[in-house]
Amino acid sequence: MPADAHETESEKETARIEAFSDGVFAIAITLLVLDLRVPRDLADGRALLRALADQWPAYLAFVTSFAFIGIMWINHHKMFTYIRRADHGLLLLNTLFLLGITFVPFPTALLAAYLPRSGGNVATLVFTGTYTLLAVFFNLVWRYASHHNRLIGRSVDPHAVATITREYSFGPMLYVIAFLLGFVSVPASLAMNLALAAFWALPPRRRRARAEALTL
Amino acid sequence: MPADAHETESEKETARIEAFSDGVFAIAITLLVLDLRVPRDLADGRALLRALADQWPAYLAFVTSFAFIGIMWINHHKMFTYIRRADHGLLLLNTLFLLGITFVPFPTALLAAYLPRSGGNVATLVFTGTYTLLAVFFNLVWRYASHHNRLIGRSVDPHAVATITREYSFGPMLYVIAFLLGFVSVPASLAMNLALAAFWALPPRRRRARAEALTL
Amino acid sequence: MPADAHETESEKETARIEAFSDGVFAIAITLLVLDLRVPRDLADGRALLRALADQWPAYLAFVTSFAFIGIMWINHHKMFTYIRRADHGLLLLNTLFLLGITFVPFPTALLAAYLPRSGGNVATLVFTGTYTLLAVFFNLVWRYASHHNRLIGRSVDPHAVATITREYSFGPMLYVIAFLLGFVSVPASLAMNLALAAFWALPPRRRRARAEALTL
Amino acid sequence: MPADAHETESEKETARIEAFSDGVFAIAITLLVLDLRVPRDLADGRALLRALADQWPAYLAFVTSFAFIGIMWINHHKMFTYIRRADHGLLLLNTLFLLGITFVPFPTALLAAYLPRSGGNVATLVFTGTYTLLAVFFNLVWRYASHHNRLIGRSVDPHAVATITREYSFGPMLYVIAFLLGFVSVPASLAMNLALAAFWALPPRRRRARAEALTL
Repeated sequence: MPADAHETESEKETARIEAFSDGVFAIAITLLVLDLRVPRDLADGRALLRALADQWPAYLAFVTSFAFIGIMWINHHKMFTYIRRADHGLLLLNTLFLLGITFVPFPTALLAAYLPRSGGNVATLVFTGTYTLLAVFFNLVWRYASHHNRLIGRSVDPHAVATITREYSFGPMLYVIAFLLGFVSVPASLAMNLALAAFWALPPRRRRARAEALTL
Repeated sequence: MPADAHETESEKETARIEAFSDGVFAIAITLLVLDLRVPRDLADGRALLRALADQWPAYLAFVTSFAFIGIMWINHHKMFTYIRRADHGLLLLNTLFLLGITFVPFPTALLAAYLPRSGGNVATLVFTGTYTLLAVFFNLVWRYASHHNRLIGRSVDPHAVATITREYSFGPMLYVIAFLLGFVSVPASLAMNLALAAFWALPPRRRRARAEALTL
Repeated sequence: MPADAHETESEKETARIEAFSDGVFAIAITLLVLDLRVPRDLADGRALLRALADQWPAYLAFVTSFAFIGIMWINHHKMFTYIRRADHGLLLLNTLFLLGITFVPFPTALLAAYLPRSGGNVATLVFTGTYTLLAVFFNLVWRYASHHNRLIGRSVDPHAVATITREYSFGPMLYVIAFLLGFVSVPASLAMNLALAAFWALPPRRRRARAEALTL
Repeated sequence: MPADAHETESEKETARIEAFSDGVFAIAITLLVLDLRVPRDLADGRALLRALADQWPAYLAFVTSFAFIGIMWINHHKMFTYIRRADHGLLLLNTLFLLGITFVPFPTALLAAYLPRSGGNVATLVFTGTYTLLAVFFNLVWRYASHHNRLIGRSVDPHAVATITREYSFGPMLYVIAFLLGFVSVPASLAMNLALAAFWALPPRRRRARAEALTL
């Protein structure tokens, strides 16, 4: 294959990376529902209702991971409004990131099965650890693409790129804290995960105001 | 990230929201088949045929949810011929709506497992309740986008927007009735769900005529 | 919603129908692999090899359904090179056709489980019956779209449309024969299914020559 | 259907083949996670941690197959920057290749279940055999498309086509060696699979340098 065609691919290339990534995001987010189990062979409506209520860890894990993948999709998506070219390195790092995304249903199922029980702390650590790794992989994609404006569109303001880099770098730090919290308290670690999802869901302007308020 | 880029995103943005939503719709609608179980280890064809026939609640749930997601897709699709811009709020509300869509296989499996049995009323309430919530979420997306023409194309007739808003608002009301019916009679509630699917499947002109005939 | 926008939608509309259908095809064809079961807890390699070989009905069902969905995709795809407009009726009929496509993994799993056993004839009838219905639904989509050139591109040769209509109409007839064969002989019915897949896989020119040779 | 329309289809045709293939790749790569099982009903965190660690063959199979499908996607993708037209033969060969891709989760699950046990050699042979077949199918697609420049873009350098053909032809040879190694040593065969994934992941320029260094 001609080396040039590999090293500097066209914008059409980014379109296909986005399309493939969107497919993986959409499937991973939809597979989460398979972790919700139908209670089998219960005698009556009352027993069924109780069994459904007892599954609350499964719903919590489902909603948390849905929110996490959903927000990752929104951010991946926004990142690619800045990335305009693709090369082999971007393909590889993006594939590594997608490996993490496809993995999410597993720790989600683990948390659903063990949250209220004795193994809950291990499940929480695996769950939050996966999120932390994903936040790191996400930053790797962005850092690689934005380093010396490697794959960024020519018209993008360098100041804006620096701002994004700073904002994204908070992700791994915050998830590491949630991960470490898991050693101390399972509810605190999970609450922080949900709070982070809610925080990232804020529109960026308000999010920044909130973050500044916290650092004062 | 520059605040402006977030607040008013381009039409390309709506294209990607539609593509991602289409992916989620397509996967959720296809996962429904996993609720149909192959009867295991039956002695002969006669026993297999009877076991297959006994699964009628699973086929009913499969077809109802397929029709529901299919019609939701058609309507989501049509809604986005009017929505021309995207912002953070639309992304979030659309993601909330998709959370509901990915959840549908669970109440479907529940109904398939409990319909002919004692827990059938609980299963029916969860099933219809999910549909009701989805109709509400769908309206939230539309109300948010159409409020003061926030994200509607400039060329769209305001009268048309008002008509759509009125038409969509019937959805939640009708599903609430189906939900409440579930407390009284499981067959009536499910029949109403199927009737609603058939009603929404009518071409819009005839649907309107039918609705007017009913209100006379 | 304005009636006009519903009745005559743009070509962009067909693009989204194709994209959604492609998603459903891709997922249904990929879910087939879930019917292949890993034999559990066997003592050694020899036992594993025998267990894998004993699963031949599962591989046969997998390959037959893969070929069937694959060929349906190719034909659906080609059909939409002629269909240039969409209306409510096309959306509904195409959704009905997709209902059939998402259903395919179920009869495939049924055949895989019962082929070599006593219930094999029932499984074969369900399997071939599903294919027959799909061939009918496919023809409904085409007939609806091509009736009085309702949704066909203006530049398409009417003679070509008539030829396609004639060719497509063979599908249901041939699958009905395969279905009826299932009452007499399971191997003959399945062999005919595979032969039909191979026949449709021929390039259209050779296929026509072959068909003419058979009718002489 | 008019024969001409079948034999020489437009570039739009290649776009839909790529979109459908991308869908199948995305789903197959995401389904791999279903092979990771949540250990059930363990007493405490320590037991859960041990059970998770004991699943290492499942993670190894997951990562290897993810890397394999990911690299196949990158290469399929690059191949279609050269292929500019489609015909019936390309559709069929590409569908055969996709049959292999959708099959990958099965040998992956087999390896995950049997790797550390007595049947591990059989599982390894099935696993590497599948990869070998896929490398052959991939070459069939390329050979068919590039033979006498059948479906290659007019502007593509014939020298580049010959280089690609030579490079791609190494794939099947190397996977055959990994397959044969499986008769001698399971770890060696799996290590070679991982090494090949890492090798294909190198940017093409460095990959070529590495290959030349090895042949000296």
